[in-house]
Amino acid sequence: MRIVEGRAEGLRITYIGGGSRGWAWQLMGDLAMEPNLSGTVALYDIDHNAAQVNAVIGNRLSRQEGVRGQWDYLACDSLAEAVTDADFVIISILPGTFDEMQSDVHAPEAYGVYQSVGDTSGPGGLVRALRTGPMFQAIAKAIATHAPHAFVINYTNPMAQCIRVLYDTYPGIRAIGCCHEVFGTQRLLCKALKEIAGMDGIERSQLRTTVTGVNHFTFITQASYRGMDLFPLYRTFAQRYWKTGFVEGDDSNWMNRYFDSAHRVKFDMFLRYGAIAAAGDRHLAEFNPGPRYLKDPDTAHSWRFTLTPVAWRKADLKERLAKSHRLYTGEEAFPIKGSGEEGVQMIRALCGLGDMVTNVNVPNRGQVSNVPLGAVMETNAVLSGAGIAPVLAGDMPPALLALSMPAITAQSLIMDAIRERKASLALPAFVNDPLTCTLSPRDAVALCQQMLSNTAGYLEGWDLAL
Amino acid sequence: MRIVEGRAEGLRITYIGGGSRGWAWQLMGDLAMEPNLSGTVALYDIDHNAAQVNAVIGNRLSRQEGVRGQWDYLACDSLAEAVTDADFVIISILPGTFDEMQSDVHAPEAYGVYQSVGDTSGPGGLVRALRTGPMFQAIAKAIATHAPHAFVINYTNPMAQCIRVLYDTYPGIRAIGCCHEVFGTQRLLCKALKEIAGMDGIERSQLRTTVTGVNHFTFITQASYRGMDLFPLYRTFAQRYWKTGFVEGDDSNWMNRYFDSAHRVKFDMFLRYGAIAAAGDRHLAEFNPGPRYLKDPDTAHSWRFTLTPVAWRKADLKERLAKSHRLYTGEEAFPIKGSGEEGVQMIRALCGLGDMVTNVNVPNRGQVSNVPLGAVMETNAVLSGAGIAPVLAGDMPPALLALSMPAITAQSLIMDAIRERKASLALPAFVNDPLTCTLSPRDAVALCQQMLSNTAGYLEGWDLAL
Amino acid sequence: MRIVEGRAEGLRITYIGGGSRGWAWQLMGDLAMEPNLSGTVALYDIDHNAAQVNAVIGNRLSRQEGVRGQWDYLACDSLAEAVTDADFVIISILPGTFDEMQSDVHAPEAYGVYQSVGDTSGPGGLVRALRTGPMFQAIAKAIATHAPHAFVINYTNPMAQCIRVLYDTYPGIRAIGCCHEVFGTQRLLCKALKEIAGMDGIERSQLRTTVTGVNHFTFITQASYRGMDLFPLYRTFAQRYWKTGFVEGDDSNWMNRYFDSAHRVKFDMFLRYGAIAAAGDRHLAEFNPGPRYLKDPDTAHSWRFTLTPVAWRKADLKERLAKSHRLYTGEEAFPIKGSGEEGVQMIRALCGLGDMVTNVNVPNRGQVSNVPLGAVMETNAVLSGAGIAPVLAGDMPPALLALSMPAITAQSLIMDAIRERKASLALPAFVNDPLTCTLSPRDAVALCQQMLSNTAGYLEGWDLAL
Amino acid sequence: MRIVEGRAEGLRITYIGGGSRGWAWQLMGDLAMEPNLSGTVALYDIDHNAAQVNAVIGNRLSRQEGVRGQWDYLACDSLAEAVTDADFVIISILPGTFDEMQSDVHAPEAYGVYQSVGDTSGPGGLVRALRTGPMFQAIAKAIATHAPHAFVINYTNPMAQCIRVLYDTYPGIRAIGCCHEVFGTQRLLCKALKEIAGMDGIERSQLRTTVTGVNHFTFITQASYRGMDLFPLYRTFAQRYWKTGFVEGDDSNWMNRYFDSAHRVKFDMFLRYGAIAAAGDRHLAEFNPGPRYLKDPDTAHSWRFTLTPVAWRKADLKERLAKSHRLYTGEEAFPIKGSGEEGVQMIRALCGLGDMVTNVNVPNRGQVSNVPLGAVMETNAVLSGAGIAPVLAGDMPPALLALSMPAITAQSLIMDAIRERKASLALPAFVNDPLTCTLSPRDAVALCQQMLSNTAGYLEGWDLAL
Repeated sequence: MRIVEGRAEGLRITYIGGGSRGWAWQLMGDLAMEPNLSGTVALYDIDHNAAQVNAVIGNRLSRQEGVRGQWDYLACDSLAEAVTDADFVIISILPGTFDEMQSDVHAPEAYGVYQSVGDTSGPGGLVRALRTGPMFQAIAKAIATHAPHAFVINYTNPMAQCIRVLYDTYPGIRAIGCCHEVFGTQRLLCKALKEIAGMDGIERSQLRTTVTGVNHFTFITQASYRGMDLFPLYRTFAQRYWKTGFVEGDDSNWMNRYFDSAHRVKFDMFLRYGAIAAAGDRHLAEFNPGPRYLKDPDTAHSWRFTLTPVAWRKADLKERLAKSHRLYTGEEAFPIKGSGEEGVQMIRALCGLGDMVTNVNVPNRGQVSNVPLGAVMETNAVLSGAGIAPVLAGDMPPALLALSMPAITAQSLIMDAIRERKASLALPAFVNDPLTCTLSPRDAVALCQQMLSNTAGYLEGWDLAL
Repeated sequence: MRIVEGRAEGLRITYIGGGSRGWAWQLMGDLAMEPNLSGTVALYDIDHNAAQVNAVIGNRLSRQEGVRGQWDYLACDSLAEAVTDADFVIISILPGTFDEMQSDVHAPEAYGVYQSVGDTSGPGGLVRALRTGPMFQAIAKAIATHAPHAFVINYTNPMAQCIRVLYDTYPGIRAIGCCHEVFGTQRLLCKALKEIAGMDGIERSQLRTTVTGVNHFTFITQASYRGMDLFPLYRTFAQRYWKTGFVEGDDSNWMNRYFDSAHRVKFDMFLRYGAIAAAGDRHLAEFNPGPRYLKDPDTAHSWRFTLTPVAWRKADLKERLAKSHRLYTGEEAFPIKGSGEEGVQMIRALCGLGDMVTNVNVPNRGQVSNVPLGAVMETNAVLSGAGIAPVLAGDMPPALLALSMPAITAQSLIMDAIRERKASLALPAFVNDPLTCTLSPRDAVALCQQMLSNTAGYLEGWDLAL
Repeated sequence: MRIVEGRAEGLRITYIGGGSRGWAWQLMGDLAMEPNLSGTVALYDIDHNAAQVNAVIGNRLSRQEGVRGQWDYLACDSLAEAVTDADFVIISILPGTFDEMQSDVHAPEAYGVYQSVGDTSGPGGLVRALRTGPMFQAIAKAIATHAPHAFVINYTNPMAQCIRVLYDTYPGIRAIGCCHEVFGTQRLLCKALKEIAGMDGIERSQLRTTVTGVNHFTFITQASYRGMDLFPLYRTFAQRYWKTGFVEGDDSNWMNRYFDSAHRVKFDMFLRYGAIAAAGDRHLAEFNPGPRYLKDPDTAHSWRFTLTPVAWRKADLKERLAKSHRLYTGEEAFPIKGSGEEGVQMIRALCGLGDMVTNVNVPNRGQVSNVPLGAVMETNAVLSGAGIAPVLAGDMPPALLALSMPAITAQSLIMDAIRERKASLALPAFVNDPLTCTLSPRDAVALCQQMLSNTAGYLEGWDLAL
Repeated sequence: MRIVEGRAEGLRITYIGGGSRGWAWQLMGDLAMEPNLSGTVALYDIDHNAAQVNAVIGNRLSRQEGVRGQWDYLACDSLAEAVTDADFVIISILPGTFDEMQSDVHAPEAYGVYQSVGDTSGPGGLVRALRTGPMFQAIAKAIATHAPHAFVINYTNPMAQCIRVLYDTYPGIRAIGCCHEVFGTQRLLCKALKEIAGMDGIERSQLRTTVTGVNHFTFITQASYRGMDLFPLYRTFAQRYWKTGFVEGDDSNWMNRYFDSAHRVKFDMFLRYGAIAAAGDRHLAEFNPGPRYLKDPDTAHSWRFTLTPVAWRKADLKERLAKSHRLYTGEEAFPIKGSGEEGVQMIRALCGLGDMVTNVNVPNRGQVSNVPLGAVMETNAVLSGAGIAPVLAGDMPPALLALSMPAITAQSLIMDAIRERKASLALPAFVNDPLTCTLSPRDAVALCQQMLSNTAGYLEGWDLAL
């Protein structure tokens, strides 16, 4: 990589999970629109064919008219090859298949435990984390060996656990976890500005928010627009729409179509805690005491969000496969438009082409004062040519800290289990999760054991006895 | 106070709540049996007559045959007078009357919230803490002014909150909170030694335990008898009696008659978390997620403990008043026997007559590594002529830390409310308590408001609006 | 204050020490050049006449051609009046007169203790800190009462102590200490880029530096230009010029004329510690063990820096008074040019007109991991419409931490002395300062007592006995 | 090991450095006097013959009349054999020979740097620490493998570094560093009680002291005798004898014959800092700024302590060798008397035969609040059948913390050097030591390089370039 007249040339970006038919395309689109970066994108995927298809799609895009950033796409055979000499490594994988996810999300239902997403916390998130662990250990080792100075951007869930494994395996890694959930809440604040104060046209980038919490259970503890405190306004907004919910009509991000909510959980949490929960309601619900929002599907619906069935994901994947084929053959043109994701802006900032302050997930080194060091937390950070520097978020509000502690302590228990290849070390986290904490020890063990067995193919060499 | 030939003479002990017909008599009995201490006991009570009655009882006891420690008892008119020049101050008061406690314990039942004790955590403990706050502020100020170097031993509940108020008001105070709940579990370990290993005759003073947690939700994380690890043995014990409970027949302490349990909660928690919960099951249940052990009275009974109705306390008080009259007139002789409490041993140790290691409640200055500084925690401490020095307990086990965080964070929220005389500052603690966390915000506010109103006579000058 | 089309209008800036003939003029000049800010500057000075003169100068400047920011200047009679409703408060005062400074700097010479500046650490800095304490307590109280939400920018030395007093007195204050010393070292890095790598034309704003330490003894622990690590280059630079020094010819800032050095101390420290000391050599020398650079004036000269005599400051003041008169009468025109200071950029950022990352002095809340909380440290921070958010600097390098500890611990000892109005509480800091630590206890007490007596007029009501 | 009727039988104590003609004999004597312990002492020494001689001496002692504890002594061929199944491991070795120590202590004199002991801090302590590192890594590994639950008691200097290496290598180790220096100061307090208050016959075990600091630079921050504060009395004592020193006539411990002082350094430090330095003056002097007490031998003598030449140690060794021969042959009888050391009492306590509170050296886990975690600190701890539990010492006084920081930070730098086998990592500690900090970088490097070269035989495989 070299900087020439304010442009970074010869960049090497490695994309692990490069066969993806979602995140990978978003990145391709964003790179195509960025005039100040160019280079090579090395795609790596355990489904090598998928990576090859995406390489074709990417290179076709590069030749499309109106494209401002020139990139060569290539599919690599091995992780080591892909990673070697990378300036940036992007990780966006599906750990296992939707069959394992089927078990993560739906197996607990037999015990009356319902999950709206099932990929972050709760029983599903925990088992997914165990499964993901060895994969991220392998990735961290490859980076330590072949690209020790690369910046690493992870999109994979469970986000916090993935980042924790990366740093646990290679403490010198320069990795961040990136998640767009906070953006959605920032956009909601813009809508509140319009609804309550009649201030239209303000964009989320113009707001300043102090962010703290664990990923998908993040809180905005301070929000302002040019020095104007947005909390009184949001209180009015929350009170007005607590009962009915607030429905937006315009979110066109592909990921969110099925995933809309009316923000009732967000408003309810604000009225309880006085902080602005900054993630989708489906995620927030899973961190709260089970009976609050996830007692059963009807309860969820009464809060105006839905449980996403894995069957839907399987169906959706089929559509995306078809689209992939059309893009591959050129039957369908790649639409050149921004994704709303920040990955490319981050790359630009980390190349030294202009600082950026945004929320990232990294281990706590003091940015959240009252949370144990090492816990992966989401806060603001300054991204610049000098790297990643977290910004102090101060103390988490006490009640929210208590609510977050099952997730925070689960991180270290799960990490122990991954490090030792011993599932039982994570059992206290399973027993303490707000969704499973009221199961009897016997039921908890039975459910956990069954879920482990369903994912055992990815836990080779582990001691799975509980 | 002076030390003469290994004896402390001329001690002045102030007893706040000196009209008590329980704890005060225990102290009298223990002092009577202790040969190396003598002096004056100044009794202070807002029911001055009760203090005077106890002074008569105490002085009569001092003249009884077989008494080894000589003490003059006197009833004081004012807190200031009672405290002046005290070497030790003992606090054991009922904050309010049983009418307020009636509300604390039973008002939440209308919302389906059941409490087995209602004086520590849960909605009852929280409101009791608010009520107790101003009383302990007044006591701390009196001590700061009139006996700044006195050692202060508190028995009043909510223990942790009382200690927190004392230190918040007078940071230089030398106060400890003492609680016998851990002793009961140590005795249970002795029974396990007998049941499982056939080792009879071992006393709790011969065990060594590492203690950590918040009062009434304390855990033994390490237990040994002369280097022999007691955990494997306790596991066998817990597994054997998890289903049926373990019934003891011999606890004759007056406080525990109504209060027996079969330790099923203790065993269940051990199987979940691997640490030995060290308090009565009635207390432990209140810190766990509500549905576990306190869904309703039947659930409690199935776990073989009972909800103590305040009506029982009222009836019991009548009996104790009658006994008080008999002791006062001399109709009944004061039985000279040890109470099993450690207060007098502590006084002896703090006089410099021999070190003592036992569990106390003091603000965290690092003795529990992963808990915020300032939180009042129960751990071991060395008591000696040099004062009180907590012993490092290290980290709380992660899952237990998460389970304890609602109580730990409630401490600071309640302290804020007391300091500012503003009840709403404690509302996030009410909303987050494991027993009330599933109420809707609306119900939570309504219940809290009603309970505050029932105790408003003790919250003069407060802003009670939520 | 209101934001209109990207401009902040109706700002009220209060300038405490508004009669200044240095910093105040710099601010006036910078404000005049800034097109996006306008409003009122309220000048307050204990020398009311000086403030009035500056108001005339400021208003005359506002009418000058080419001025882009419109400001009304007014002189206020009282601190309260000046501060009321301020959006920003700037503090830049001389605590006492040059007569007191004469004692601070030169009295220790009788004991063989030499100081190059004498306003930060060392015996002079300590006594100056004591004198400054009550002044800053009064300022903090006025701000708490009359402008509790104002941003406060302090330029007064001893910087760290002044900020500490502000936060100690009014914990809610939004104050930062700003200092240009780091800028000088950043410029030196630009020169190294030119000298060593032949890269000309790079400006300090293009570098990214991680800054940590106490003010005037700050260190750059990471420095890069667009991702290029500057440390190897600086090592070559330091080795090349360690012996001879590196002389620059172009620093025209009024403060630095007398204050040049050849950076030999900076280079020597780099070779010892591997971090880039980021302050003028005159300041750095005073934090090092006395015999290193300040054994006597000849030693200082051999390191190619000078001891600034207070006599020079007195003479310089005369010149500035004359210039003030010329500006007041209009005889001399106010030159419209930037000062190189960042105050106005900071104001703009804090108004929400664009984020800024720069080094500031605020109490440690975790931004420096291995330094006690509360110590005022200099690190980067994000300044935005949301306020001031420190950026994590991580651990100080161990050896530099040890070297800085006398200054860090002095902060708390001096604060105790100020709070209690009891000079002896600061004596351990005097005894431990690297410049005075080898005096006998007797000499240390005698010198400290004499210096206190010389400044006693500013320590009314204090217990000065040591 | 088994406990039978309050006695520990079948103990296995491993003594590393078991050929010693000092500490080993003390232990033999103490074990002989202790009625409640018996078993085997396995002696290991790189001088196997010396271990064999001591085995003979020990077994002869066991048969002597009046001996109350029965022990079998045996000499082991290998570390692994010696350590296997040990209940206790005692480490007391000379790292290298007196030839290496000759360099440690005297080589710096060529640069005007004088050391009174040279085995703890200063240039000699640092180089000795490097040499000791690999030895203690090997010991820790042997314990981890062959006796993972053993208690380890170390007497070797540099104490703090040795303990640090043990825990760094085997984090689960149960090791303490024991040092008698604090005892001497406690005895001095008893003498002050007699001199100043006329209270004769009080023994150090009757005092209660709060201890904090790094080994050999430890401070008593609180001292009492049965609740009586000893600080006012010690102030009088220090003031009375500051000038002349206080000479004791009765210390008969073999180690202290040459090592007497008149406590002038101790008194001087008390007058500066208000805390009671609790180590011999020869040690204390080495942690202070060089010019204070160690400018040159005359300065030391004026403070009434001496620089111990290694030549004396060599001569003394000859005498001890001769004595060893006499004990071996039986020509001289082993005197059965207590050494004043606490090792055997500690063993008894750790066997569960009675708790003990005394000062030990272990890594900081919060017992000293304002010192980095992991630094090996000397504080009180409770020793019991449950193991070693440090007692909270709170904050170090700020000025003493600053004075101790070069030693505290040196620990981590030296540990880095040992772990990486790279001497240059320790150079910042050398440059920052109070005795060498005023050398030029060039001289510092030259001296350090020479000293490393003198000890290079013990640093095989290291990168010694600076």
